Amino acid sequence: MQWGAGIGVAMTGCSKTEKTAAVEEEGPSQLGATIRAYGERSPHEKSARFLPDTKTPEAASSRTPLADSHGIITPNGLHFERHHSGVPTIDPAAHKLLIHGLVSNPLMLTMGELKRLPSVSRVHFIECAGNSRSEWGTKGAPDVRQSHGLASCSEWTGVLLSVLLAEAGVQAKAKWLIAEGDDPCHMQRSIPLSKALDDIIVAYGQNGESLRPEQGYPLRLVVPGYEGNINVKWLRRINVTDQPGMVKDETSKYTELLGDGKARIFTFEMDAKSVITYPSGGHQLEGKGFHQITGLAWSGRGRVETVEISTDGGKTWKKAELQEPRHRMAFTRFRLGWTWDGGEAVLVSRCTDETGYTQPTRDDLIAVRGKNSDYHCNATKPWMVSADGKVTNA
Amino acid sequence: MQWGAGIGVAMTGCSKTEKTAAVEEEGPSQLGATIRAYGERSPHEKSARFLPDTKTPEAASSRTPLADSHGIITPNGLHFERHHSGVPTIDPAAHKLLIHGLVSNPLMLTMGELKRLPSVSRVHFIECAGNSRSEWGTKGAPDVRQSHGLASCSEWTGVLLSVLLAEAGVQAKAKWLIAEGDDPCHMQRSIPLSKALDDIIVAYGQNGESLRPEQGYPLRLVVPGYEGNINVKWLRRINVTDQPGMVKDETSKYTELLGDGKARIFTFEMDAKSVITYPSGGHQLEGKGFHQITGLAWSGRGRVETVEISTDGGKTWKKAELQEPRHRMAFTRFRLGWTWDGGEAVLVSRCTDETGYTQPTRDDLIAVRGKNSDYHCNATKPWMVSADGKVTNA
Repeated sequence: MQWGAGIGVAMTGCSKTEKTAAVEEEGPSQLGATIRAYGERSPHEKSARFLPDTKTPEAASSRTPLADSHGIITPNGLHFERHHSGVPTIDPAAHKLLIHGLVSNPLMLTMGELKRLPSVSRVHFIECAGNSRSEWGTKGAPDVRQSHGLASCSEWTGVLLSVLLAEAGVQAKAKWLIAEGDDPCHMQRSIPLSKALDDIIVAYGQNGESLRPEQGYPLRLVVPGYEGNINVKWLRRINVTDQPGMVKDETSKYTELLGDGKARIFTFEMDAKSVITYPSGGHQLEGKGFHQITGLAWSGRGRVETVEISTDGGKTWKKAELQEPRHRMAFTRFRLGWTWDGGEAVLVSRCTDETGYTQPTRDDLIAVRGKNSDYHCNATKPWMVSADGKVTNA
Repeated sequence: MQWGAGIGVAMTGCSKTEKTAAVEEEGPSQLGATIRAYGERSPHEKSARFLPDTKTPEAASSRTPLADSHGIITPNGLHFERHHSGVPTIDPAAHKLLIHGLVSNPLMLTMGELKRLPSVSRVHFIECAGNSRSEWGTKGAPDVRQSHGLASCSEWTGVLLSVLLAEAGVQAKAKWLIAEGDDPCHMQRSIPLSKALDDIIVAYGQNGESLRPEQGYPLRLVVPGYEGNINVKWLRRINVTDQPGMVKDETSKYTELLGDGKARIFTFEMDAKSVITYPSGGHQLEGKGFHQITGLAWSGRGRVETVEISTDGGKTWKKAELQEPRHRMAFTRFRLGWTWDGGEAVLVSRCTDETGYTQPTRDDLIAVRGKNSDYHCNATKPWMVSADGKVTNA
């Protein structure tokens, strides 16, 4: 145990007067609120997604307040958003999914038909390819909601795409599929058939209830570990093909310009990444002594194996405790006890995934990828603790 | 694989006309909704907790709509409720937790102090002792929300009570503690110290965000596997003692009257239990052929090891597939493919936990407990499928 008796945080005990007052305190004299059909948050809770100042809030993104998060589940009301033409309102009773192209038995499925089929529930993160875009620059975002809030994690429920493809009868020459959403722009992305036959979920459930509208209600793809854009929302069509579609959103967007001017395309997996959520930018440490450092780590290539934390800007490292069980392609919560001596400190985390890959520093990432990139930044993120307890982007 | 090609549910393929129409369909001509700070459900989603017809909605219970649930997480807005004097509105900035009694260093902790401490996040169910009370009778409730909806499951985050007790310095003669809520009735329950030193969580987080008001905001006990009432909400005080308090809610309520007129007291653990959520009472099967039978199983004594399903009222049984990973004292989702031949069927599940205990039938339970009991009914629950596809309480 890294802790036990003697943490000695602000728990300095209480006086007899305090104790007696607390024990004798009367409860409220009025009855509290009644039971109700659907619960809401306390009016004291103000945690919210970050909304950018934009003239096109239909084609924008909102970011999860990760500094307020607990555990590995993102509440549905705070899951990040990224839309290309706004959130459509879809009547599930009228919604259908078409599977066609290089299949021997094209299928048109209602939501009711889908829900009769074999289902799975799995915990997976989804991360926008543009998450942490701010961290390519020298300045970096001021808080973790802005720097890393385009990532969230849910328990998704639905039918494995492999089950539907088996039913449709995929032809021998099929190699890709093109998934299409039911939003006004009919957002499309190409996905290798091998991934579809592996672990893609055609999902209708999110954290125990139906998907939220901004998460693709009533149906979306969950493509474990792949960049967010490929997890097509409001899913209406899957076209099985022998080649990728080279569609708008994989040519005009979601490619990475390298240092030599060439662009990478189909950079599916989100590489291993971690960030400290407490203490992080904007926090104010209330007093020296014990503080639990905590944060989130994830990898698009499997399970997170280790997370290390440095409080001296990367000179020395300690292994953090990882929340079990660790799911594949899912947030992993890490925690480490830290006694703050009241001096300056630079806190940073780095993670290693099951492939043995370790999250790079910004310098190391730029050495490989150059400075032209916009997407897929997975650099480590340091936070500066000042002597007055203020925490800022380092 | 129990499924693969050839499920042959209503997926009868689609005509060329349908396919062409779907492919050529235009998307909505208007942009969809904008990003927003906190998400809400689709207006098409009506899933709600069951509210009884009562003159005292402050001292009542609401039930989780388990038939609409996916996976193992209960959404916070649908977690069951049971209040004794209503839901208090508590300002977290003013809330404190007192730990006193047989300790050498009494503690008075603010929420800020608690959140600096070592934390854990664990998935646990909470079940009211009165859940499935309806099933003691010969009639039984008509649907699973009413019969089993006083149980829910969340990822809880907080500080292990053992950490706080170590800091307070528990004295040698201590054997119990009395936990007290900050609701108008100051609800109290006695808990053995051994359980407190094992796995009790002083929780402030629920599924990634702060507790909801009706779940104890800002602080509650999560006592894994113990009857719901002991998971004291709006927690304000823990008094370490050498004996149980014999308080109102463990003498006037939450005891089990046996057949011979004697009552059991301190029946903490909720025994192993399972129920089929689809198809269940109120459902209408749309057509013969493939249907996935699914439901939830849990045990207050550890992990669920197996769930078996019968479609002939208990004459023959098949093992269901269990959602992994299986957490201790948590919902476990089970699933089994079933091809309905259009005839009458009686569906029932039974589970076995890691202690080797198997969920009993109602007759077997009554043979041990008699007919006077009101709480702790964990009998198996059969559902009748009629030839017209209607599902009712069997």
